[in-house]
Amino acid sequence: MPQLVHNTFISRKPQDLVLTDGFQFTHGQTIAPFTIRYETFGELNADRSNAILVCHALSASAHVAGKYTDNDDERPGWWDGLVGYGKGIDLDKYFVVCANLPGSCFGTTAPSSIDPETGRPYGSRYPWPTIEDMVHSQKRVLDHLGISHLKSIAGGSLGGMQVLMWTALYPAFSDSIMAMACGAAVPVQGIAWHVIGRKMVESDAHFNSGDYYGHEPLRGLQIARMVGHMTYLSAQALQSKFGRRRRGNTRQFEIDSYFEYQGQKFAKQYDANSYIRVQAAMDEMDMLEQFGSIEAAFAKWRGQTLIVSFDTDWLFPMPEVERVEQAMLVNGTPVHHERISSPNGHDTFLIDYDLITPPVRAFLKQL
Amino acid sequence: MPQLVHNTFISRKPQDLVLTDGFQFTHGQTIAPFTIRYETFGELNADRSNAILVCHALSASAHVAGKYTDNDDERPGWWDGLVGYGKGIDLDKYFVVCANLPGSCFGTTAPSSIDPETGRPYGSRYPWPTIEDMVHSQKRVLDHLGISHLKSIAGGSLGGMQVLMWTALYPAFSDSIMAMACGAAVPVQGIAWHVIGRKMVESDAHFNSGDYYGHEPLRGLQIARMVGHMTYLSAQALQSKFGRRRRGNTRQFEIDSYFEYQGQKFAKQYDANSYIRVQAAMDEMDMLEQFGSIEAAFAKWRGQTLIVSFDTDWLFPMPEVERVEQAMLVNGTPVHHERISSPNGHDTFLIDYDLITPPVRAFLKQL
Repeated sequence: MPQLVHNTFISRKPQDLVLTDGFQFTHGQTIAPFTIRYETFGELNADRSNAILVCHALSASAHVAGKYTDNDDERPGWWDGLVGYGKGIDLDKYFVVCANLPGSCFGTTAPSSIDPETGRPYGSRYPWPTIEDMVHSQKRVLDHLGISHLKSIAGGSLGGMQVLMWTALYPAFSDSIMAMACGAAVPVQGIAWHVIGRKMVESDAHFNSGDYYGHEPLRGLQIARMVGHMTYLSAQALQSKFGRRRRGNTRQFEIDSYFEYQGQKFAKQYDANSYIRVQAAMDEMDMLEQFGSIEAAFAKWRGQTLIVSFDTDWLFPMPEVERVEQAMLVNGTPVHHERISSPNGHDTFLIDYDLITPPVRAFLKQL
Repeated sequence: MPQLVHNTFISRKPQDLVLTDGFQFTHGQTIAPFTIRYETFGELNADRSNAILVCHALSASAHVAGKYTDNDDERPGWWDGLVGYGKGIDLDKYFVVCANLPGSCFGTTAPSSIDPETGRPYGSRYPWPTIEDMVHSQKRVLDHLGISHLKSIAGGSLGGMQVLMWTALYPAFSDSIMAMACGAAVPVQGIAWHVIGRKMVESDAHFNSGDYYGHEPLRGLQIARMVGHMTYLSAQALQSKFGRRRRGNTRQFEIDSYFEYQGQKFAKQYDANSYIRVQAAMDEMDMLEQFGSIEAAFAKWRGQTLIVSFDTDWLFPMPEVERVEQAMLVNGTPVHHERISSPNGHDTFLIDYDLITPPVRAFLKQL
């Protein structure tokens, strides 16, 4: 794998859009006031025609690229390899917007946020968001920024599912989409793993129906993260990275040690209520069920479409991705489906920038 | 799938071999006295030459075939479809022996058994058995029965791994083996899932390092069983049996409901300490590590060998099974590798009797 060249720019600070009248969730509840944290990268041009919305996945935030400081230890944004000056989504040309999802815990009003009415975290009373809620919240940010049309909408995994939902809810809003490692619904194998992970969180002795703040269900979340992690990795990657190797002179398997490290790191920065809600939103999205058929879901979408899939992605196996492609083609939508071969499974869109950059660059160039 | 015809015979009662001097585990500890529960099926012939040892897998017992009563509600033995009068392993010809594993909780002295010295269950003080311990305990039963040579040794999954270990430890003891859905070591993908499941048991608030009797870690064991269950199922089977269907008029996924049912059923009949120990024994077996190479592991084995693998088994994918086949062929051992295509994944050896019976029957016939 070629060495990834990180961006060197210093990101703008995250910004907050405060909806004083609140945000109404699909399932009916309203939280008011409601803050949506977002970030922007690059410059919006004079006619406001160069904006690209980036949608983030389960564990990410609005911080797409760059660092907030020049501290070498700071981790850059989650799509730093694709978004930047001279990169696949080129900030010399495009203005990128990303909003932290309703349900997520990185600045947008979350289950862990204090309810001003009670002085306590929302906890169990926080709604279970949907992918539509995520799309609507992004739309609110774009409205706020005065952006009435997008050049493109991009994302992978849960982010890619938001991209697909955008085409159904706002089919005229964007010239194009770039959807990676996603489908119109999570197949049952992914559902099953997700459900098992959520049971782990909810059965942690500290969970207390979600009202646990001060005594977080860390162990349940750590193990749920390990389950999630497994669905992002291919059998090949597991074999080449870990195999049956033991850690040092111990009998502990290296994969066990790696999972403990990753699980603990994750549980320190992510909130269990956010995890189960954002993941459940992914599982609940089902464009066939919602629109009657997959063709009907994409009936009004005619924008340029780039679909990127990965041969070792077993969360969204190739046939699931092809169902989206075929439905759009049947509708007469121009689709380019880029099938990428990589050992890195579902997470390829976060790893193999040398493989995803050329199709993204070529796609944006011809728009 | 053709309708399975159950055996109609009434099984003999389980028998107990009590080792008053105890059983010494590979890792050094001895439990004394130590009971090995076993069952036999069919009749041993005059020259004691028709015995077949059957090795059971993770959740099974010594009860291979038939029922103890004529009660219609009683579940027959775990390999009732393969072992019986006129069946693949034909009780008209063969005398079948199966012993409950050290560590398992179906009659053999187990973590849940009362330690006569303390009057309390062994719990955390019960040793972590190995596959060698399982083989040695079976050998003790055969010695007790006056059987000094076997016609064959058969098993699937963990049972198949015992079969392979038999060829290394007692290469002259049997004319043949029949090993299904197994390899010389569990690949890392299976290890990872198993480790996650064990963490789930051990993090249950009731676990108490294994000294929990009276307050069992039921939820942890239920969820660990769901993880295990997933590794036995193929993506195809999940799709065709459950898909994204919901249960009745609820929003609960059918797969969720099915897992809850199966998890609860399992946790009622299986003990958590047994689960983590027997499963860890499977993970710890590594014939390459133990014997230096896979060829060395099978260096002394020259018996007739039937290996049965399943194309949708992702716990032991085909290349893992082929490593065993190739090592034996290199050594000059006669191997027939039957590759079976079925949607039923790892568990095919417990489901598709119409597919596994013909190769077993043909193999035994030519011995």
